[in-house]
Amino acid sequence: MILKVRTKAGPGSTPAYGQIAEHLRREIRGGRLADGKRLPTVREMAKRLGVSRDTVAVAYEALAAEGLVESTVGRGTFVRAAAPSPKGTGATPPLSPLVERLLERERARPRFVDGGESVPLHAIVPDPSLFPLDAFRKAIQRALRKEGGALLAYGPPQGHRGLREAIAARLRALGVEAGPDEVVLCQGASEGISLALRLFASPGDAVAVEDPTYGNVLSAVAGLGLVPVGVPMGEDGPDLAALEQVLARPEVKVLYTIPTFHNPLGTSTSVAHRRALLEIAARLGKPVVEDAYEIDLRYEGRPVPPLAALDRSGLVLHLSSFSKALFPGVRVGWIVARGRLVDALLAVKRSTDLGGSTLLQAALAEFLGSGAFDRHLARLRRALLSRRKALLEALAKSLPAGTQWTTPDGGYQVWVELPEGIDTRELLAEATKEGVQFSPGDFFRVDGRPSRALRLSLATADEAAIRAGVAALGRAVRERMGAGRRASRSRAVHV
Amino acid sequence: MILKVRTKAGPGSTPAYGQIAEHLRREIRGGRLADGKRLPTVREMAKRLGVSRDTVAVAYEALAAEGLVESTVGRGTFVRAAAPSPKGTGATPPLSPLVERLLERERARPRFVDGGESVPLHAIVPDPSLFPLDAFRKAIQRALRKEGGALLAYGPPQGHRGLREAIAARLRALGVEAGPDEVVLCQGASEGISLALRLFASPGDAVAVEDPTYGNVLSAVAGLGLVPVGVPMGEDGPDLAALEQVLARPEVKVLYTIPTFHNPLGTSTSVAHRRALLEIAARLGKPVVEDAYEIDLRYEGRPVPPLAALDRSGLVLHLSSFSKALFPGVRVGWIVARGRLVDALLAVKRSTDLGGSTLLQAALAEFLGSGAFDRHLARLRRALLSRRKALLEALAKSLPAGTQWTTPDGGYQVWVELPEGIDTRELLAEATKEGVQFSPGDFFRVDGRPSRALRLSLATADEAAIRAGVAALGRAVRERMGAGRRASRSRAVHV
Repeated sequence: MILKVRTKAGPGSTPAYGQIAEHLRREIRGGRLADGKRLPTVREMAKRLGVSRDTVAVAYEALAAEGLVESTVGRGTFVRAAAPSPKGTGATPPLSPLVERLLERERARPRFVDGGESVPLHAIVPDPSLFPLDAFRKAIQRALRKEGGALLAYGPPQGHRGLREAIAARLRALGVEAGPDEVVLCQGASEGISLALRLFASPGDAVAVEDPTYGNVLSAVAGLGLVPVGVPMGEDGPDLAALEQVLARPEVKVLYTIPTFHNPLGTSTSVAHRRALLEIAARLGKPVVEDAYEIDLRYEGRPVPPLAALDRSGLVLHLSSFSKALFPGVRVGWIVARGRLVDALLAVKRSTDLGGSTLLQAALAEFLGSGAFDRHLARLRRALLSRRKALLEALAKSLPAGTQWTTPDGGYQVWVELPEGIDTRELLAEATKEGVQFSPGDFFRVDGRPSRALRLSLATADEAAIRAGVAALGRAVRERMGAGRRASRSRAVHV
Repeated sequence: MILKVRTKAGPGSTPAYGQIAEHLRREIRGGRLADGKRLPTVREMAKRLGVSRDTVAVAYEALAAEGLVESTVGRGTFVRAAAPSPKGTGATPPLSPLVERLLERERARPRFVDGGESVPLHAIVPDPSLFPLDAFRKAIQRALRKEGGALLAYGPPQGHRGLREAIAARLRALGVEAGPDEVVLCQGASEGISLALRLFASPGDAVAVEDPTYGNVLSAVAGLGLVPVGVPMGEDGPDLAALEQVLARPEVKVLYTIPTFHNPLGTSTSVAHRRALLEIAARLGKPVVEDAYEIDLRYEGRPVPPLAALDRSGLVLHLSSFSKALFPGVRVGWIVARGRLVDALLAVKRSTDLGGSTLLQAALAEFLGSGAFDRHLARLRRALLSRRKALLEALAKSLPAGTQWTTPDGGYQVWVELPEGIDTRELLAEATKEGVQFSPGDFFRVDGRPSRALRLSLATADEAAIRAGVAALGRAVRERMGAGRRASRSRAVHV
């Protein structure tokens, strides 16, 4: 059989592991790879195809999960007899196709090494060493003393009123006029994303997203049976002409956007772009989900009003959370919506999980009221500014000519585009060995096609670690540029 | 126009408010009720149709939400010009049809009066006065001392390992062999239900449920775009012949069942029934979601092994939570699953909310380890046994001949069937005035048709309140039996 793997980025192309899996799947189902036939080892296959072992391993695992091949340690990977029967004792019942798709996305997640010697520049996970633990412990005690057992009963599905009032006051400082009845608390911004998308889009509908975008929103979309439609990012946010075309499509029911400290780019759109985006959405009657998850983390420049502050049409749902600005473990995010949309959010939430923990919500209200949150934010912003400075200096020093990166005014992430011809998914394994981990760009792409970009995070590494990590990245890139040019060309091999 | 409302229970019939709303919708859309036309007042309409004002009010509210009518206080309810435009400034963007269905379910929820003089026999919400608050506060402190900031970072999506180990140990005591890697923590059993159903059923698929069943599972099913198919309850759990027919239908992907302390019935199935049910599910290759949410609350009789303990096919997902046995505010439930199903649950969970609060999970682990949970359970079971005794005695004393009820061995709920001809949804308003609230049976029915049954809860009222509440129920029923017979007949009126 002949297998060609295209590892060079191109619109609409499938990731390398997907191409390999799909090819073998067809061969097995078509009987051209017979029962019992041994596949090439991961190492052989990777070499023949000019892809990384990780890519081949992911493809083999996908086939094993579907019951099409079986791996035995020390012997190899073998084609299994026909398709497995979904029925009968001991068999796993057939999973929903949506869940199979989610599992495939999970398998395609970049693999990171925990607690190794590599500098963790990959995850946007706040640094526990910065957590104001003592102040929060006291806030829990105060809340329990004041409100007692009610905090452990079912709370209102909309969330603790005191916290909603505190959030509404903070929103007003951002220019968003909203009362506590227009704030719905949720399980982190991530639950908020699912709830907000479900309001407008039914299974089979489409959702407009920026391309690249937050990787997990692509999982949320897939899990809900929705179809993501990418809007390419221009110099100042999503390209407006493309946005208008996408939103005009009847099957596209809602736009998901991150105008402030975009994930993964780190950039923010201008006021003019925000107004233009809102004008398009209002004209086409399409709601806008504004993810403002890092809006509290500005360390430089002037604040730009969020979409919700500029919106006159009532089409914007604004969502944010404490996960990045404080700590994720409280699992508290919020959605700001108007009128009937609040009822709708609550109806969907009730059908899903009956609401969050009132105890933690009340403790957060105490924590905000005591001024501890603002003190923490001031400290966190200083740390981020200093880390970003170290990162940008190190990039200028260690990365080869032709590399470009963003210069964010806040948040945790910086986006780096390497010179043409490098697939950062392939690069990750080598970089990890050199001493740094990052998030490869393909994970943020709507179609998951290979990317020469990567995301670096300021969340957990300090200045010294950042410098060491970027130096390691520079070494890995140069090595790849020297040795890896072959891998970026298409190849044909016989398997 | 001629409107007939059938308020008598019949298979496949629509609830009264739905019949009224649907009729008026057709009249308005068909132009037979012109723009500006004033509808009869709620009071007039209720009188003419022989239904309660609540029923008419719900129908009018549904139409108002759709923009078909508009109510002005003091003037009345008027038909609005044509259908409202979904576009343009200030308009609410169109909601997904699934969400409209959920909103309709929310409007159809029985309306309860909070904090009034009525005895609350309606909600299954544990009594905060029984919460072991001090012990739990100390458990939070111990957990924070031991594990520090890690408890406020993102935890493993599967949940805190210590708590999963403690749960696995408790499961073994129930006869369920499961290790901590087979336990997935979730946001109460309610999130567990959604996760488990999503594994097997895609939008458009069907889910087999007992009829009657837990009201909120019907919302979960509706919100996911699934179709519930009811299996009637016989003497000993769901009728097995009907179950087999339903599970044999290809579009039915999974069974949701509550074998122990059924909600709303309060009854438990025999071991023989459980084995027969599992045999049918295994033969047809259909997975079974076992909701064991009150399994820790047995106060009488011998324990019956849960389905997960009898299962040899790997088709059972077992789920439970701390919400009823301890307190709901920790929002911790768990699902027990095998092999690939665990990966699938985690993939769906990650796409939805990235996991729960590790702090509360760790505190629960401490709380269980200290023996405080078992002490609390012993106390709670004694309270429930004494309350059930009071309830059954009061029912025998106060309810008219022809009334039947269940005699549960555990849990919070008792199911009461009133004599023929009474619609308990209609009865609720009168009973509330008499001094008691209950959950009307229609809310637990798959098709929401009127019911002469109701659910009583032992959760929040003590023995004296229970006796007073059941006496009030008896008065309301006798009144209705005397005066209300007309209302159970079909009527034709001109509106």
